[in-house]
Amino acid sequence: MTASSSADPSLVQDLVDANRILYNEGVLDAFGHVSARHDKRSDRFLLAGNVAPALVEPGDILEFDFDGSPVVDSGRRLYAERFLHAEIYRARPDVMAVVHSHSVAVLPFSVSQQARLRPVCHMSGFLGGGVPVFEIRDTAGLATDLLIRNRELGAALAKTLDRHAVVLMRGHGSTVVAPSIKLAVYRAVYTEVNARVQLQAERLGPITFLTEEEADATAESNEAHVDRPWLLWKAKARSSGI
Amino acid sequence: MTASSSADPSLVQDLVDANRILYNEGVLDAFGHVSARHDKRSDRFLLAGNVAPALVEPGDILEFDFDGSPVVDSGRRLYAERFLHAEIYRARPDVMAVVHSHSVAVLPFSVSQQARLRPVCHMSGFLGGGVPVFEIRDTAGLATDLLIRNRELGAALAKTLDRHAVVLMRGHGSTVVAPSIKLAVYRAVYTEVNARVQLQAERLGPITFLTEEEADATAESNEAHVDRPWLLWKAKARSSGI
Amino acid sequence: MTASSSADPSLVQDLVDANRILYNEGVLDAFGHVSARHDKRSDRFLLAGNVAPALVEPGDILEFDFDGSPVVDSGRRLYAERFLHAEIYRARPDVMAVVHSHSVAVLPFSVSQQARLRPVCHMSGFLGGGVPVFEIRDTAGLATDLLIRNRELGAALAKTLDRHAVVLMRGHGSTVVAPSIKLAVYRAVYTEVNARVQLQAERLGPITFLTEEEADATAESNEAHVDRPWLLWKAKARSSGI
Amino acid sequence: MTASSSADPSLVQDLVDANRILYNEGVLDAFGHVSARHDKRSDRFLLAGNVAPALVEPGDILEFDFDGSPVVDSGRRLYAERFLHAEIYRARPDVMAVVHSHSVAVLPFSVSQQARLRPVCHMSGFLGGGVPVFEIRDTAGLATDLLIRNRELGAALAKTLDRHAVVLMRGHGSTVVAPSIKLAVYRAVYTEVNARVQLQAERLGPITFLTEEEADATAESNEAHVDRPWLLWKAKARSSGI
Repeated sequence: MTASSSADPSLVQDLVDANRILYNEGVLDAFGHVSARHDKRSDRFLLAGNVAPALVEPGDILEFDFDGSPVVDSGRRLYAERFLHAEIYRARPDVMAVVHSHSVAVLPFSVSQQARLRPVCHMSGFLGGGVPVFEIRDTAGLATDLLIRNRELGAALAKTLDRHAVVLMRGHGSTVVAPSIKLAVYRAVYTEVNARVQLQAERLGPITFLTEEEADATAESNEAHVDRPWLLWKAKARSSGI
Repeated sequence: MTASSSADPSLVQDLVDANRILYNEGVLDAFGHVSARHDKRSDRFLLAGNVAPALVEPGDILEFDFDGSPVVDSGRRLYAERFLHAEIYRARPDVMAVVHSHSVAVLPFSVSQQARLRPVCHMSGFLGGGVPVFEIRDTAGLATDLLIRNRELGAALAKTLDRHAVVLMRGHGSTVVAPSIKLAVYRAVYTEVNARVQLQAERLGPITFLTEEEADATAESNEAHVDRPWLLWKAKARSSGI
Repeated sequence: MTASSSADPSLVQDLVDANRILYNEGVLDAFGHVSARHDKRSDRFLLAGNVAPALVEPGDILEFDFDGSPVVDSGRRLYAERFLHAEIYRARPDVMAVVHSHSVAVLPFSVSQQARLRPVCHMSGFLGGGVPVFEIRDTAGLATDLLIRNRELGAALAKTLDRHAVVLMRGHGSTVVAPSIKLAVYRAVYTEVNARVQLQAERLGPITFLTEEEADATAESNEAHVDRPWLLWKAKARSSGI
Repeated sequence: MTASSSADPSLVQDLVDANRILYNEGVLDAFGHVSARHDKRSDRFLLAGNVAPALVEPGDILEFDFDGSPVVDSGRRLYAERFLHAEIYRARPDVMAVVHSHSVAVLPFSVSQQARLRPVCHMSGFLGGGVPVFEIRDTAGLATDLLIRNRELGAALAKTLDRHAVVLMRGHGSTVVAPSIKLAVYRAVYTEVNARVQLQAERLGPITFLTEEEADATAESNEAHVDRPWLLWKAKARSSGI
């Protein structure tokens, strides 16, 4: 019996698959994490213990309260940044899943003093409301390790995220939220794709980005098709051999 | 018995292979699609139901008329953009296959207000007549989801495509046409390769592109060798494990 | 018995491995080719029939004379550009192997009117004497298909290659020569690596390239270690599953 | 019995895994090497004989003294640059492992006359004290093969490395040091990741780099989690099929 046994086993399995998919699609590497809100207790969430996402098994999924404490103390080592998840679930009742990553194409936009990540194609309309950048120095000064190590930092990040789907974190990565695990995975993958395309497009001169209306309309269209990529990505991750 | 049983089984198999090849070569991801004109009914075409290209099986291939309706209603969910295929087959009797993709290196050229995709090497001479960019705003305003959701949009895209082999779609991707499935796959792969090379070359200063005559001559030469890449790509896709 | 049966079987096997390695390392794709001078007849060379490099088997290796004609007419379709190999072997008695490719990072340097491929690191000292660019328009005008289709074009290319190890071909690719198959493979791989590094370095401001003396010294050092990469690349290619 | 039989077998195994991981993660290719200080003799170190890192087996690990001589003469061919390891271990008692690579994203920073590699994200805080560039011309003139072929060059490199974790080598690559094998692998991987991110960010305008304090704090945080990536990378390398 695992510490998360009270949650629906299919939710736990989806979360395991999400971990492996995000690794396999190049969003997570040995670091980063993905969580889901508990299906029976909206004041709790599920998150793996301290392990690389590609290696997560159902037995690694733990249950946490909004203070970032495991409901059952298994003695396992925990992700230092679980507070990031906790405070977003607390601030955003609409959020059911959270992905935190250091993906390589997004990082440049987190440290650029000039460029802003914006929706460049119809697969990433969810970026439409703007992508805020969280500067930890504004909350905690010039000498942190950049991690969201406590409730205060989690709350500050959640405040910068506001009603958006994605928040960049300067010199650190990004956090993506969504109303389901599948959609959080989708958004995390296409945030990275959008960044790759925009990085290339920036050098070709001025860019035509999506209008706000196009961003809204494309986001709505794509959210209806999330099973298509999910089934593919799951099949790929499961056949990847790790 | 599948809905497409009236077509030659080898055509259906080639279309299945085309789906898997285009995924395996990085042209399609979880989205995009490829179709072929029916071999016995030139007013119909074959296209998969709503499934990721890498997972398409012969039983997924459906038969459509030029109104974008499936000839046999299987109750399956359909690609929203089947009208893109229908209207191109209607407008271009020479076209036997159509690939629609969101490939990553081509997308920047669809949103750049300055750069134009042009044939930079002998493998992509088919780009020679110029590569038009379809701006959906000209037809449907500033608030669409960018998809070719109906006959009117399909006809507008076909009109922009005109006699060309490739049309870019702003903020969306591209559509490639050819007189055979194999050649459509070839052109889709080398449109992406050309884009990758041109993106790198643009930063090195002025580029010597192919002349119109070189583009025509190289296109003709390469079309005669399409079995060489097809056999390789098919072997690779079949051994890829998904 | 194959058409190349008069050559040493280990030479034929090395040539087969070279084909597969160059595909596996991203130098060749479905196109391009690699040849070796015959070990018993210095006026002949070995080259596969018309097949994708990754699929070449010993039985595909044919024997050619310097007119580009197969010594035994097997009725097989041939690479159109075999004259490229023939004329280089004729002009350069020191050359024992030739690789012709369209590799993606090298192509931008073949079409740039400004940038020149130069040795940027110690693995590519063989580029030291300079890398000429062959412009087919100078020999055959503005309307060719860019291919080295006959003896005259082969001779013109060999003349531009001169005493160098690598010649770029505008809008087409490059040709690499060496005193052995292993070394030709090595140089083809590191021409591509050098191009990748130089493309990135160009955007960071002025570059310190190797001096002529450094280029000579590094080339000499590395040529003594060619078995190290060859054994690795062969193991990888053989385990790649195609 | 191998030449390194006096060392702890688990140290030898970690070193073998480090070789394979660094290949699998794209830091080493057919060249480059990784060593570890001997666990019982602090004046000796372990390093493979002349073989590609991806193919290293426990029996390939040899024991060297600080003159770069193998303790047992096995007659095997040796890496020409073993002096690089020897002189760093001599100069830096804190260093327990050394990685020398030619990784592709780092190389541009070694030859740029303008750009400097700096820590752009929290995973690479160990770059914080600055990343010196070793110019072999300052020690040995304009005509070397760039290799660290003897004690004098090794000592000069160690002097440029000074107290840092990473030293770039102009036109050659980089050398990374750490207090353990696992940490040396971690730093080598994230030096490459940092370079990739910085290369992309440079083109987007001015960059916000880590402060010195952030670099120190993130380095300390991440050093505590090095088992997480190590376990993943080891599993991947072992399942990679070479």
